[in-house]
Order: sequence, then structure tokens, then C-alpha cells
Amino acid sequence: MPLSEFDLIDKYFKNALSGGPEVRCGIGDDAAIVSVPQGMELALSMDTLVAGVHFSTSTTPEDIGYKALAVNLSDMAAMGAEPRWITLSLTLPQDDPASWLEAFMSGFSALAGKYSLALIGGDLAHGPLSITIEIHGWLPAGTAIYRSGARPGDRIYVSGTLGDAGLALGVLDQRWSIDRKYHAEIFNRLYRPVPRTALGMALRGLATSAIDISDGLQADLAHILEASRAGARLDPGLLPLSEALRQLPLAEAWEIALTAGDDYELCFTLPAAIPETEIKRLSAITPVHCIGQVTTEAGMYWQRLDGSVFVPAGTGYKHFRNG
Amino acid sequence: MPLSEFDLIDKYFKNALSGGPEVRCGIGDDAAIVSVPQGMELALSMDTLVAGVHFSTSTTPEDIGYKALAVNLSDMAAMGAEPRWITLSLTLPQDDPASWLEAFMSGFSALAGKYSLALIGGDLAHGPLSITIEIHGWLPAGTAIYRSGARPGDRIYVSGTLGDAGLALGVLDQRWSIDRKYHAEIFNRLYRPVPRTALGMALRGLATSAIDISDGLQADLAHILEASRAGARLDPGLLPLSEALRQLPLAEAWEIALTAGDDYELCFTLPAAIPETEIKRLSAITPVHCIGQVTTEAGMYWQRLDGSVFVPAGTGYKHFRNG
Repeated sequence: MPLSEFDLIDKYFKNALSGGPEVRCGIGDDAAIVSVPQGMELALSMDTLVAGVHFSTSTTPEDIGYKALAVNLSDMAAMGAEPRWITLSLTLPQDDPASWLEAFMSGFSALAGKYSLALIGGDLAHGPLSITIEIHGWLPAGTAIYRSGARPGDRIYVSGTLGDAGLALGVLDQRWSIDRKYHAEIFNRLYRPVPRTALGMALRGLATSAIDISDGLQADLAHILEASRAGARLDPGLLPLSEALRQLPLAEAWEIALTAGDDYELCFTLPAAIPETEIKRLSAITPVHCIGQVTTEAGMYWQRLDGSVFVPAGTGYKHFRNG
Repeated sequence: MPLSEFDLIDKYFKNALSGGPEVRCGIGDDAAIVSVPQGMELALSMDTLVAGVHFSTSTTPEDIGYKALAVNLSDMAAMGAEPRWITLSLTLPQDDPASWLEAFMSGFSALAGKYSLALIGGDLAHGPLSITIEIHGWLPAGTAIYRSGARPGDRIYVSGTLGDAGLALGVLDQRWSIDRKYHAEIFNRLYRPVPRTALGMALRGLATSAIDISDGLQADLAHILEASRAGARLDPGLLPLSEALRQLPLAEAWEIALTAGDDYELCFTLPAAIPETEIKRLSAITPVHCIGQVTTEAGMYWQRLDGSVFVPAGTGYKHFRNG
């Protein structure tokens, strides 16, 4: 006999991740009740993942559970916020979703547990597979890092390496073929992205702007530049590429790094005068690389050291494409 | 040419409902940033509505927009919280959803504007129609009304009238037929439920427990009794029924009032010693009616003044039905 909605909630959610003393009431009432320490502001972000759109229907429920949370944690990192509480709404097609839920929650909880996150509420509905998460974080008042703070002369940085998730998708689609010894690494980048939480928190008081790279650097950096009413000059030769991605011809590797998205690295700007010791401190958390600088002229120019210009063909992932 | 996701967000969401000074940053960054006044706790609740499950595919986008928000506001009312901010995630099947969005937002904003709510974030995705809302409210620390506080001897109250939304569904399904002069009223109850926000806030410090009636009084009162480890004796003759519902045979009317759900009235308990002046104060906001009292023995007994027992056949709406 399939379990009822209430039984499923009791079994998979209610006692899963109960959180700290600031959670006055978690799952099981009409709303959760939480308290926010004095001097803290809240960061709130909601994302929906739809089967067949944001993930392939062949993705395992464990990987869906992990990644759905990871992309939300990445939004917190981009603001410099410490993630605290999650609400989770699942729409599931199965009449008896218990085994799917068990697998989903194992991926989800593996990541949530690392950050001591509390699952404080949500919903469970019957219908086409879709997952909505709201992540709630906090940070000292006035320290949030916005997209709008980049200033001409600031240096532009990215964390980690770019394009590995896009490469993995291309390998799955048989658009590219690379040595199998790289497969585990790039599929891990696609299915198990690591949110740059500690790096984001370390950027408070240092970075003038930040964003997480979900739609590709080209599209996401454009958001920073638009919000900051500025432009950028960048050197594609400075893009941090993994050994796996460097198996492809360089222009293709750059194209993927700039437009494929799904990397969940951070792109941020730092004042030019920032001491090298601060860069080292950041890189000890996650390696960071300067790829260019903010300019007063609008637009984004990719120019190599030898003066040759690189023009990416794509412009990043869009959910509602325009013509 | 269809608008891009970013254009749609700019046009329909970004400047729609911007909120008060506590909203430091609304739509347009990786997360919203809000501050919570000292001494306040937060109430958070997330609900998903799926087309064909929670609403008929013939429901207008205006009505969907209104009701999606109303059911969330109802959860805040049940805690005694004042609603403040909304995040909204829409999954839409149309390639060009502009006209649907415009209609949805007119229903949504009509209600949000009444409560000066801010729309601070969310998501827009392509896929089978579904709406997820998280409502964020606040209330003085320690004043939240939980399901678990009912004590033997407490009186059980409900607000408004019960069963009108269920009657409207039955009329739509042609299970019942009533005089057309009642149609406007009952369809309004189904499509435009009024969240009992002011009543919920007035119950702080008075009510020992509260819940909103979404799945039917029988099912929702059972949640209070279970959480409070108590039972109840009630008189179905005391159930507040509209003139419309009283057109049906009494036993059917009671059945609908107890099990149809979708009313979004409040069910709450008050200590027996509460002064009549307090009841009058509450009823001046929304009429409230005592229908029974909390008992030490578990279970829910419906008994008329003449001693005859009424046993409802249904047990309220369940999303994942068990056998």
C-alpha cells in the first residue's frame, strides 16, 4: 500500500535535517518559525528544476537531489551569504514515490549535512517531475555582495575551472570525444558541482560585485556589467581550463568555457589595489584567476596578448529563447 | 518575437511589488536581501499548485494568480503572522507566455497589493504548468500559534462558513444543483477565497492552537488534535453553513462542510474562560463560531443536541491517496 502524503513527509523530511536553536518550529505546522540573530540580514533565493528541461530524464534521483540543492547554495555564495534553511517542494509523477524519494533525499541530505542546513518546510504534490527549492541564508547587515558594484579598473576573477560541465554534456551528446580517463572528473563537475560557499563568504568586504556562473561566463558577466553600467576587457588566454577541456582545440575550449554554463563557479570583481596576500587567502579556499578588468566603455572584449580578438559564438543558456 | 526570460521578468515582476524599506534588494540579483526588525520572528511557508491536480485546466490565469497567493496567505493567518514578502516560481508551457503572465499577475497583484506584499524573487521556467510560492511573514517573537497547543476543555471555533468551495466544485461537476442566484457567491468562495489575515493576527495571545482549513475541517482539526494529543466532541448543528449550502439536505451539507476543503477559513481553539467581549472583537473581523470542545479522549465525535451521532463518510483531500 503506498504511503500517504503525510506518511511520506514524516518518513523522508520531518526528522531529516532539523537545524539549530534558531529553528523554533520546522516541518509539521502551517509554516516554519525561525529567528534571525540581531545584526544579520537574510538572503533568499528560489529555483525550480523541471525534468527534461533542467536535467535529463535519465539523471538519477540522487544526482537530482544533490544538484537541486547545489545550484541554490551557489546563489547564496554569490551574495556572500551563509546558507541556513531550506524549503523544498517536490512534484512527483509516481503513485508510490517512496523509493524515488529515498534516493533523492540521500543526494540532497549528503550536501545539506555538510553545511548543517535545516529542512524547515515545503510541499509534496502529484504531477510532472519538478523540484523547487528556496534557500535562506544570513550575513552581517550591509555586507551582501551585489552585481551592481563593479567599478572601472576593478580586476575580474573567476574561481576554479570553467567549461567542464559543458564538456560533459557535449560528451554525453557525442558532440565531443575525449580520453575516458577524464570522464569521472567532468561528469562529477556536471552532476556534483561544489558550491563556492566558503569563497563567497570570504569575499565579503573585498569583492565589489559577484555572480555565480550558471548560464555561462559570457552571459553572467554581462549581468554584472549591465548592473554596474560598465564594460570589460578580457584575455581568453587567462581563462582557467581543466586538463580535460584542454584536450579540445583551444577556440572550442574557450567557447565552451564562456557559453556552456552549469559550472557554478563564482565570477567577481576586486579593486586593482587589493594586496596579493588577500588573493592568496582566497585561492587557499578555491583557486581564483584574474581574467581581465572592468572598463568604462560598455561591451565585453576578448583580446589575446598578441592582440588577436576572440568573439564567442554563443551567448549562454536561455530558458525562454528569443529569435 | 517572444520575450526572453529576462525581458519577461523585467516586464511582469521586477517593478510589480517592491515592498518597504526592509527589502534591501529585491528581484534582479542572485538572491533577495531583507532585514527583519528586532524582536520579530519569521514565518515561512511554501506551496505548489499543479495544473490538473490543484486547479482545473479551465481555471483562468487571473483566478490561478489570485488563489495561489491566497492559499499561502492563509498559512500565515493560521500562524498569526503578518505576511511581508513573496517569492514566486512559475513553470509555463507556452513558448510565448506574455499574455498568460499578464493575466496571472493581475489576479496575483490584486491580492498582494491589499497587503502591501513585496515580490522579492523567484524563477521562470519552461514546462508543465505549475506555480510555487513561498510566503514570508513576521510576528513578535514567541507569539506564533501552533497546532500543538490545544488543551482539554478549550472551545473549538471556526471562522466564516464552511463547505461553499466544495459546493461550488460539486455544482461544476454536476453532482449538485442549486438555485443560480447562489452561483456567484459560491464560485467566488472557490476562486477567490479571502485569507483570514487580520483574524489570525488578532488570535495571537488568545488562541491555544490554529490551522487553516484547506483539506476539510475533519482532516485539518485532526491535525490539531494529533499535535495536541487530544480529542474533540462537536455538534454538527453548530457548523456555520451559508444559505447556499443549506439548500442541500442537511446531512449532505454537513458532509461537504466537513470534508470538501478549499475553504481557507481558520479553525482554532480558545480557553473556555475567554471573555465574551473577546469573541465579539474577533467576530467583528470575521464571524467566528464555537462548534465543540477539546477532550482528553482521542478521536473526534460529532453528536447532535438530540444525542444522535453523525459520522462523516469522507476524510478530506489527500494528494497521495492510500488504499
